[in-house]
Amino acid sequence: MLSKNTLKFIKSLQQKKFRKQEQLFFVEGGKNVTELLQSDYEVSQVLFTTQYGKEHARLLDSIKADVFEVSQSTLESVGSFQSNDSALVVAKSKPNTPISLSSEEWAIALDDVKDPGNLGTIIRIADWYGIQNLFLSEESAEFYNPKVLHASMGSFTRIRFFYTDLKKQFEKSSIPIYGAYLEGESIHKTKFGNGGIILMGNESNGISKELQPLVSHKVTIPRFGYAESLNVAVATAIFCDNIRRQSI
Amino acid sequence: MLSKNTLKFIKSLQQKKFRKQEQLFFVEGGKNVTELLQSDYEVSQVLFTTQYGKEHARLLDSIKADVFEVSQSTLESVGSFQSNDSALVVAKSKPNTPISLSSEEWAIALDDVKDPGNLGTIIRIADWYGIQNLFLSEESAEFYNPKVLHASMGSFTRIRFFYTDLKKQFEKSSIPIYGAYLEGESIHKTKFGNGGIILMGNESNGISKELQPLVSHKVTIPRFGYAESLNVAVATAIFCDNIRRQSI
Repeated sequence: MLSKNTLKFIKSLQQKKFRKQEQLFFVEGGKNVTELLQSDYEVSQVLFTTQYGKEHARLLDSIKADVFEVSQSTLESVGSFQSNDSALVVAKSKPNTPISLSSEEWAIALDDVKDPGNLGTIIRIADWYGIQNLFLSEESAEFYNPKVLHASMGSFTRIRFFYTDLKKQFEKSSIPIYGAYLEGESIHKTKFGNGGIILMGNESNGISKELQPLVSHKVTIPRFGYAESLNVAVATAIFCDNIRRQSI
Repeated sequence: MLSKNTLKFIKSLQQKKFRKQEQLFFVEGGKNVTELLQSDYEVSQVLFTTQYGKEHARLLDSIKADVFEVSQSTLESVGSFQSNDSALVVAKSKPNTPISLSSEEWAIALDDVKDPGNLGTIIRIADWYGIQNLFLSEESAEFYNPKVLHASMGSFTRIRFFYTDLKKQFEKSSIPIYGAYLEGESIHKTKFGNGGIILMGNESNGISKELQPLVSHKVTIPRFGYAESLNVAVATAIFCDNIRRQSI
């Protein structure tokens, strides 16, 4: 039986403060929940509708956690979705862990990307292009924000992240850093090596001044029309696509 | 003096029904308003704060329309933004007008792309890549929805659109149609001609069955990781980038 206190506790995880304090988060919606249950995340509670329970009986049986069949309205009352007819799961956050890159690996680094939808979309893009490493400045959006997880469409389960002072992180490494600029070498002509860091700047201000001296390649996406800029997630995808096309 | 009735009228344009009926729409925020005032759109009212008025005095002087200096709270009470400290403008919608493409032109066609944020982002991408023509199925998001205009970041002023039955539209034309599929020829190997249509499908269901026989080239964005799909706006950008890199 699911107590009122447990529901209240789950609802409190809508707030960053409680997610940090409890080292727990929740995800909602069938796709994200199913991906989470199949991942290496440690699950503490699963709430699901009769319908979701029928469709995923075997998966739910295999979970070592408290599972509760609930109504759609209960899901909607604790979660952040206006409509959720499938499931919600509470799981343990992964700790903030340094990432060590080999010289043949790619990572994406985000310098104060603040919009949760952008971060979630970037996580999905990184996963599509097989780039598993994500460095985030401390002012970037929070990985376990419900809007980030939603936009990631389950891809968050496959991406390693590390929040850090990007300046200190980059100063101690000799890995090439490809920064996204409005002026630089055309991405259609850039020779990407076998590994490195794709550095994307803040939505309004781009790459911060203190990081600029550390950028080894200033790269730009050529413009053929009149828009002032591209959305940061869109630009990240174009970087990934241009890098990966050279590896085939 | 701005009357209560005028404010009520502008507010009513938040609803699609009234936008259609009046053939009017509004845009909010400094960037979008400034782009609109510099475009060929016919403006009926401009509401702006003291600050916006100071920064754009010459532009506002040149506008043949009713202009009103108002408080930030007035802007926020009539518009859809939670916060708007700059301006809002009411303008006349462009009529739904057929587009005739030359054989050396590109167009984007959207088959039931329903999310306003996606449509707005696609408009911004089209403008970046200098693709001015947009065909939309009748079930696609509405061009003048405030969320579309917001996400377009002013680019909507430079894009021609035509809502139509895409099947009928394509049947009568011999222009090549490059459709976005999860399985098809790699976009990194596709030879794009000098012009054609980039066809993107619905967020959940892709390209509809009735349009499939009309697609001349099934094209796919190669996947290197595990995400199930890419966001439709992101995929559109990768199509545009791959097409434009061949034209240089």
